[in-house]
Amino acid sequence: MNAYLEEIGKRARKSQFEILRLSTDDKNKALVSVADALIAHTDEILNENEKDVKISRDNLVKESLIDRLTLTKGRIKDMAEGLIQISKLPDPINEELDEFSRPNGLSIHKVRVPIGVIGIIYESRPNVTADAFGLCFKASNVSILRGGKDAINSNKAIIEVIRNALSECGISKDSVILIEKTDREIATEFMKMNKYVDLLIPRGGAGLIRSVVENATIPVIETGTGNCHVFVDESADVNMALDIIVNAKTQRMGVCNAIESLIVHKNIAEKIVPLIYDKLSEKSVEIRACEKTISICPDLSLEKATEEDYATEYLGPLISLKIVGDVTEAIEHVNKYTTHHSECIVTENKENAEKFMNEVDAACVYVNASTRFTDGFEFGFGAEIGISTQKLHARGPMGLKELTSYKYKVYGNGQIRG
Amino acid sequence: MNAYLEEIGKRARKSQFEILRLSTDDKNKALVSVADALIAHTDEILNENEKDVKISRDNLVKESLIDRLTLTKGRIKDMAEGLIQISKLPDPINEELDEFSRPNGLSIHKVRVPIGVIGIIYESRPNVTADAFGLCFKASNVSILRGGKDAINSNKAIIEVIRNALSECGISKDSVILIEKTDREIATEFMKMNKYVDLLIPRGGAGLIRSVVENATIPVIETGTGNCHVFVDESADVNMALDIIVNAKTQRMGVCNAIESLIVHKNIAEKIVPLIYDKLSEKSVEIRACEKTISICPDLSLEKATEEDYATEYLGPLISLKIVGDVTEAIEHVNKYTTHHSECIVTENKENAEKFMNEVDAACVYVNASTRFTDGFEFGFGAEIGISTQKLHARGPMGLKELTSYKYKVYGNGQIRG
Repeated sequence: MNAYLEEIGKRARKSQFEILRLSTDDKNKALVSVADALIAHTDEILNENEKDVKISRDNLVKESLIDRLTLTKGRIKDMAEGLIQISKLPDPINEELDEFSRPNGLSIHKVRVPIGVIGIIYESRPNVTADAFGLCFKASNVSILRGGKDAINSNKAIIEVIRNALSECGISKDSVILIEKTDREIATEFMKMNKYVDLLIPRGGAGLIRSVVENATIPVIETGTGNCHVFVDESADVNMALDIIVNAKTQRMGVCNAIESLIVHKNIAEKIVPLIYDKLSEKSVEIRACEKTISICPDLSLEKATEEDYATEYLGPLISLKIVGDVTEAIEHVNKYTTHHSECIVTENKENAEKFMNEVDAACVYVNASTRFTDGFEFGFGAEIGISTQKLHARGPMGLKELTSYKYKVYGNGQIRG
Repeated sequence: MNAYLEEIGKRARKSQFEILRLSTDDKNKALVSVADALIAHTDEILNENEKDVKISRDNLVKESLIDRLTLTKGRIKDMAEGLIQISKLPDPINEELDEFSRPNGLSIHKVRVPIGVIGIIYESRPNVTADAFGLCFKASNVSILRGGKDAINSNKAIIEVIRNALSECGISKDSVILIEKTDREIATEFMKMNKYVDLLIPRGGAGLIRSVVENATIPVIETGTGNCHVFVDESADVNMALDIIVNAKTQRMGVCNAIESLIVHKNIAEKIVPLIYDKLSEKSVEIRACEKTISICPDLSLEKATEEDYATEYLGPLISLKIVGDVTEAIEHVNKYTTHHSECIVTENKENAEKFMNEVDAACVYVNASTRFTDGFEFGFGAEIGISTQKLHARGPMGLKELTSYKYKVYGNGQIRG
């Protein structure tokens, strides 16, 4: 193992057991202190961030990425505010999840415990640095952060502030550790540090997530790829369907819970497709449709959707559309192309709603509501580290509880197995 | 992707949605029918098993492995009985885990659902074939089984019986699929079939599990490696400690919840080590001890324990022993060498018991009871697919509930995000 990473791993494992002994009050006070420190050190952080932005501009990085990279006083205040919010959430640790006794007198308690050491791999968004630390720390986990190369000076500055503030609270600095080497080889080695890291959470685009899934030997939670659909059933309330489609597609186009594809029942298609077209055109969204749609609505001059269109998370002003014969065909289409994130049926038919909800294989399945609600805050979790699109451990929005594991504490008085 | 495996993956995904529609009654009746069919086809299965045993003998396979491979009328009856037992367990699917409403009127139901397609990779133990199918099927999962090469004829025969019995119940044969090609390349490719398989569970020795963890891109649950300890605190009841040590070490030596290492408080060592020595000698168990033990008990002529001894899961008549100064040092020693399976403290001191239980990082932590109770049946789960030693998804004994995921069903009446 790379010596630099091994040293980080050892420090993290040591700190894991120190963090475990902190009370809820210790943790909450520390989070508030860190928030105060971020505000107090705004100028230093902005100075370092300016370096990153300058280098990125010199390297002709895309403007949208530079926007994500750029910090302002307001954004640092938001980071601090996020930590304050986390300090107010209930502590998930030590919750008794179950308790049962066995005929031999053993008393078994299933208790919520931290995962231990969590690795977060993310892109050049320095706000994730404070956010990921805060969520992991509140659930008594050590975090090892590996942020994007373009944000390295910002991340170093933020982490320095956090670690010093923790230290002033008498808490191990190594509650959060930044991997300061930003080459790819280090990232790939990091993904194989099973001895020191219990869980990896990648946060970022599809490419980053695929790379982590393919390279990691540490357990990974896949997050955030959303090829989401709305199915308009024949009984749908037309105005409700239009509102949901426009909201789910256009309220914010670049996010994982926005929709990328429409499915329309054949008996409502002639009526609703032109209306959808008008509404989405107002927002400059282009529809790519199946042959049937094109033949029903020749006046719209729609471009034909390819297999690739149905499989694409556009994250922009494009949407695919397919007409189907019934809810069964709609479910089959969804299950063929879904990334298991969020799927919606608009219908007044309860039977079809239940069928869709039961048979569509996704984290969140909606009847008559926008997919944009798949979000830790909207679900009332108070915070979110990501949206899981896999089925192991956590599914859908991941809050503090999803950053925990459990253990069985077994109390005996000399029981042996016969 | 390998065409043979891709065809299997496609059949599994298709069957996943058929299995989802089965009622509890459908599943239970099918399990009983499969059990009956196994009994009815005992002779064919035994014939095929004889071929495997003969080939293994010709290849000079170890006698202990041949014992695991060999089927008898009694063992086939046990397999059938296991399926009957599974048919009597409560169905975990569709359980409502949580229900909450949001201020905007959205009603969110968190519901237990199958994982989908589960891959089981195991060694040449044909009884696992029926057992793994039964547990996965009861939780409405499709299973793809990849058993050891030496058991291929037995596995084919068993699977043929199961699939035909399912078909006679009107249930998709592809509820369980055996990978009949037994070369390593196929196994390695199988571990990367993320598109078609949601979870991999390796069942077998440490080598098999390591290979799956290192090669798989599909999420894996690590099971069954147990470097388990008993710590005898200074306040321990000596007779209780001796009973627990003898039981945990010798009741069955080759299993993952047997102990491999002892830790003894320095203030009780002089008294208890000779007694432990006597008791374990009766069972032909050899102690490898730290220098301090050797200096305290020179008469016992104990061999010195190496670093490797402390790290080894012997699964046989050897045990390591270390004297420590207090419970903190005991916890540090455990956390350095544990495989996170089962750990025990014998003590009359409640504070030390709590400290040990809180700070030892293992699935099951015992006070005053044998580690041998870490088992799905002993925990009252009614069945077990394995003991998870990782912290993601499931920890400790995995029963039917641990073979499930959840989804959020969100009911709205036109809600859109502002």
